[in-house]
Amino acid sequence: MSEFEEPAIGDTRLSEADLRDAWRVLDTSERAEGFRLLNPTEGEEFFIDLSAGDQLALFTALSPAEQRFWLRALPPDDCADLVQEALPEDRPAMLALLDEALRREVRTLLAYAEDDAGGLMSTRFARVRPEMTVDEAILYLRKQANAQLETIYYGYVLDREQRLLGVVSLRQLFQAKGNALVSDVMHTDLVQVPEEMDQELVGRTFAEHDLVALPVVDSSGRMKGIVTVDDIVDVVQEEATEDIQKIGGSEALDAPYLEVSVLQMVKKRAGWLAILFVGEMFTAPVVDHYAEHIQQATVLASLMPLIISGGGNAGSQASTLVIRAMALGEARLSDWVRVLRRELLAGTVLGLALGLVGMLRIVAWEGISGDYGPHYLILGVTVGVSVVGVVLWGTITGAMLPLALRRLGFDPASASAPLVATLVDVTGLLIYFGLATALLAGTML
Amino acid sequence: MSEFEEPAIGDTRLSEADLRDAWRVLDTSERAEGFRLLNPTEGEEFFIDLSAGDQLALFTALSPAEQRFWLRALPPDDCADLVQEALPEDRPAMLALLDEALRREVRTLLAYAEDDAGGLMSTRFARVRPEMTVDEAILYLRKQANAQLETIYYGYVLDREQRLLGVVSLRQLFQAKGNALVSDVMHTDLVQVPEEMDQELVGRTFAEHDLVALPVVDSSGRMKGIVTVDDIVDVVQEEATEDIQKIGGSEALDAPYLEVSVLQMVKKRAGWLAILFVGEMFTAPVVDHYAEHIQQATVLASLMPLIISGGGNAGSQASTLVIRAMALGEARLSDWVRVLRRELLAGTVLGLALGLVGMLRIVAWEGISGDYGPHYLILGVTVGVSVVGVVLWGTITGAMLPLALRRLGFDPASASAPLVATLVDVTGLLIYFGLATALLAGTML
Repeated sequence: MSEFEEPAIGDTRLSEADLRDAWRVLDTSERAEGFRLLNPTEGEEFFIDLSAGDQLALFTALSPAEQRFWLRALPPDDCADLVQEALPEDRPAMLALLDEALRREVRTLLAYAEDDAGGLMSTRFARVRPEMTVDEAILYLRKQANAQLETIYYGYVLDREQRLLGVVSLRQLFQAKGNALVSDVMHTDLVQVPEEMDQELVGRTFAEHDLVALPVVDSSGRMKGIVTVDDIVDVVQEEATEDIQKIGGSEALDAPYLEVSVLQMVKKRAGWLAILFVGEMFTAPVVDHYAEHIQQATVLASLMPLIISGGGNAGSQASTLVIRAMALGEARLSDWVRVLRRELLAGTVLGLALGLVGMLRIVAWEGISGDYGPHYLILGVTVGVSVVGVVLWGTITGAMLPLALRRLGFDPASASAPLVATLVDVTGLLIYFGLATALLAGTML
Repeated sequence: MSEFEEPAIGDTRLSEADLRDAWRVLDTSERAEGFRLLNPTEGEEFFIDLSAGDQLALFTALSPAEQRFWLRALPPDDCADLVQEALPEDRPAMLALLDEALRREVRTLLAYAEDDAGGLMSTRFARVRPEMTVDEAILYLRKQANAQLETIYYGYVLDREQRLLGVVSLRQLFQAKGNALVSDVMHTDLVQVPEEMDQELVGRTFAEHDLVALPVVDSSGRMKGIVTVDDIVDVVQEEATEDIQKIGGSEALDAPYLEVSVLQMVKKRAGWLAILFVGEMFTAPVVDHYAEHIQQATVLASLMPLIISGGGNAGSQASTLVIRAMALGEARLSDWVRVLRRELLAGTVLGLALGLVGMLRIVAWEGISGDYGPHYLILGVTVGVSVVGVVLWGTITGAMLPLALRRLGFDPASASAPLVATLVDVTGLLIYFGLATALLAGTML
């Protein structure tokens, strides 16, 4: 490990905290240089704490000897994440840096989808046998302190076929009589997850049960690994980030905002923006259809943005509330009738409130300026009724769209605020001009 | 504990999993009934796992004897959360159910804001002394297995003034020589947080360092408690939920979507909806100002929704990306120039792309229908240039608004998609009609 001895530049030592603070403003070669200034223990902690993306960038800037050292320093699950982050063509060379045993473990983990329970788990958990005594189990776990296990605080009790029978914590063992059997003190009422469970659901399982580690089993109940809660904090952050970015109307960036290139970012944003733009084009023929009305009363055109935006805003509220409720498991597909009933009620109340404000606006403005002429009252009613209709429609569309997307196998978070607003704009104009034609015929039209 | 013996209804026993599955569709008295059917161990686990809101509802439905039992069964931090959830006038009666020692602990915790590190922490951590030997420390932690400590896997090394000197894990102790001193094996390079740190930042600290527990210290470095990662998963979920609901243009619901009453929900949504509606009213005078132009060319009115929505959508994308980057600590206030530079570039490229699509739309439609007349080319140019301007303006507004809100002490997440769209609508109309006046004078106008 000669490459990790005192650096040449005098006796400068950098602390982990210093490097962490400066990290964001350093370029890759500066990062590698700073990283080499850490002492080996701090360096290891620092490297493990980096995101897979940052690890890969740093890894690429290191010498082959350093690469071998640091790759082997990672636990197998983190090592698999790092390899997964690399381009497919670079992966074999990375795997070649590992020793045979680690390579086998990493290969197994790479076979899982990155965002499955299997892709998150560590294969290095402590196995205890049901027929051990408590004292034997404590001794065994204690001996594993130096082993590269994810945790020694939980012993998983497996039968000869590797099927999970129970779990026992070191704390439970400390509380039990030394000559009792593990099978008598273990917890058998287990929360466990299948290896193909999506990480979003794994995160929810942790949140619901306040767990520290969760065993992962295959379809025949054989235990494959454990997911630990410290990895789950990242998963929950990541899933929320994806949802938020989709709700805003982009694709998920999959990287920190300031680190993704502008070109990459434009690509993630242009697709939806173009689709929404094309969708919004359907507003033009609707308005064109009522061109004569607008000729007779341009006020119809000037109130247009007010009325359709009310529907879009109400729809954005409803869709984000429902998207989040679905992500948290608070609302399921089967709840759609309850959601519909609630939003019908909420949309009606909100529509009536805004409609009243809209009507008062027309009446008050007439009082101040006299712009709207003799038929201002019926114009006020038209605006009021249109707002009720558009807000109610927007609310229902916004609430039902995420459920419909899930039903069709899409991500509910794609029911973004801009998408809902766009859908509601076209129909909102139909509602507005339809009502105006009916209510204003013979007066303003 | 006679009230928790076998229930009267035959020998029906309910499992925790059954009750959990049915929970959402049961009303409060059914929940209490089901809860009484659990065996005591499962009941305790079940009760502790409930959210504070559910705990309170269940608690209220129980008999006084049951209330005393279950309140005392909670660890002090969870107990404080439950008391906090109750109405202020009900809290003294709840505190009176506790024994003196627990009441003192809960009172201390209640003094912290609910979403501070202090409000999250448990005061029951294991204290070890620096001059203990490793064997003594192991023996001491082992003896604490029955105590109501949050964890026995970490010993916090304090001096006589309760100042935190270091931390040592049980695993480290197992690895060390039995006669070594705790002060020699402990970790001194500590990540610790002040008691008043906001929970969002506490969550980020966990995510960055992959920690299991984090010590909380007061301003003079005295250790007050620990926050454990299993509580943090909930915090991260909760903070993301608040942000998502704000991004959608509501206030945070602070309760599961299907459980909050419709009235309560309408209250959380009506405020912003009304503000946005009033804000959007400023579009009417802008369009009115150009009423003559619209009389001459109603096509200007029919293209209005298309052009302003492009700006709103681009703005929603930019604001949600920046809001999330700020929440994750990826972008800070001081990064505003970098954000501005990136969004200027992205906004220009996106604007040019959409502008081109808009222009082609006019030209193509003219080819199909001949609706736009002889000046269709200059109309196409007007639409194209307007879209570039509006999209660029929307992008900049969306990206800068969250930063401006943070600078002024508000929550960046209040820069919701609907708020950005509303702001951009008014200015977007000015850009559009201004350009139309300049470019179409002498042809269509």
